[in-house]
Amino acid sequence: MSLRHHSERLRVRTPGRGTVDVTARVQEIVRRAEVELGQCTVFVHHTSASLIICENADPDVRRDLEAFAARLVPDGDRLFTHTAEGPDDMPAHVRSVLTQCSLTIPVAGGRADLGTWQGVYLWEHRHAAHTRTITVTVLGS
Amino acid sequence: MSLRHHSERLRVRTPGRGTVDVTARVQEIVRRAEVELGQCTVFVHHTSASLIICENADPDVRRDLEAFAARLVPDGDRLFTHTAEGPDDMPAHVRSVLTQCSLTIPVAGGRADLGTWQGVYLWEHRHAAHTRTITVTVLGS
Amino acid sequence: MSLRHHSERLRVRTPGRGTVDVTARVQEIVRRAEVELGQCTVFVHHTSASLIICENADPDVRRDLEAFAARLVPDGDRLFTHTAEGPDDMPAHVRSVLTQCSLTIPVAGGRADLGTWQGVYLWEHRHAAHTRTITVTVLGS
Repeated sequence: MSLRHHSERLRVRTPGRGTVDVTARVQEIVRRAEVELGQCTVFVHHTSASLIICENADPDVRRDLEAFAARLVPDGDRLFTHTAEGPDDMPAHVRSVLTQCSLTIPVAGGRADLGTWQGVYLWEHRHAAHTRTITVTVLGS
Repeated sequence: MSLRHHSERLRVRTPGRGTVDVTARVQEIVRRAEVELGQCTVFVHHTSASLIICENADPDVRRDLEAFAARLVPDGDRLFTHTAEGPDDMPAHVRSVLTQCSLTIPVAGGRADLGTWQGVYLWEHRHAAHTRTITVTVLGS
Repeated sequence: MSLRHHSERLRVRTPGRGTVDVTARVQEIVRRAEVELGQCTVFVHHTSASLIICENADPDVRRDLEAFAARLVPDGDRLFTHTAEGPDDMPAHVRSVLTQCSLTIPVAGGRADLGTWQGVYLWEHRHAAHTRTITVTVLGS
């Protein structure tokens, strides 16, 4: 059992605030890694977009999550002094800190071994469209 | 120094909302992995239960944490439209997103190298009892 | 391609509540690991201090983040019963659970492959100064 690693970068276009399902693209990379058993780590190289594992069946879940985040960290909150890039600038950093910038998922049978209802999402926290960079690293044998 | 990996699944029964200490079961798997130095990753395969590392000495800490979560993400909040499985359905997804679905812990001396006051907990966010699946992956030599 | 791992402990002095930039010290360890490609995991061995990846250019971001956390989890909140060590005791545990105790970052070109604006911070949640322990584990080839 000799361990291998494999890593690839993904570029993800976001249409502005909201979640983008990247599960299929992560699975493709795990497939190309030809690792049967091990783990894979997804990492986002930004501080105003983040990663979550979330329910993947009912789009209302991500809509409600967005509504919750908007209430918890309101755009234009007068608490914030870092407003250089607009009212969604500092809230984007707070939302990122409260969620994940890396996720580590077991690999089994050559696939990221997610639960039935688990999807991997990039969460864009800015209102403007962006191109975001993710690295997927696979380790195993 | 040749690297090895080892992984096992755990089934954890939860009595409904609250935290279940899984530290001893994680340590058993690290022991069976026979890895002296490396890391171990704990992953939960669900979107309405999550993982945390929390103070392990005073049960009041987990009780207060539960009270905080209940106030931050109230059951039956009218903000939520995803209510198919009841008033604790969407709050369970939000609590999961705000905590962790994977934890990576260093392994040293053949044990998960937790701090003195750190315990690993599965946090059940639904009111009903569930059986939850966790994968523990150990990498090292 | 033979995989290696390397791990080191860091001791970080904190002047009390606030963030301490540990990016340079993490990069030094990655350098000493002599791993070109792989990943590194940063782990904090405490339950009242945590880790975040945050914007590293404008100090106002961390100041606003601190203000947000102080409002979200107020010191001395009457909700809390675990107050043995003072009004900032339980809030420190809650803030830790809402942020990270481990971060996994890809390694590329012999460096932790952070985005341009990403810094790694230890977040001290207690008002008193502490010495905190972090382990950095590097895996790769």
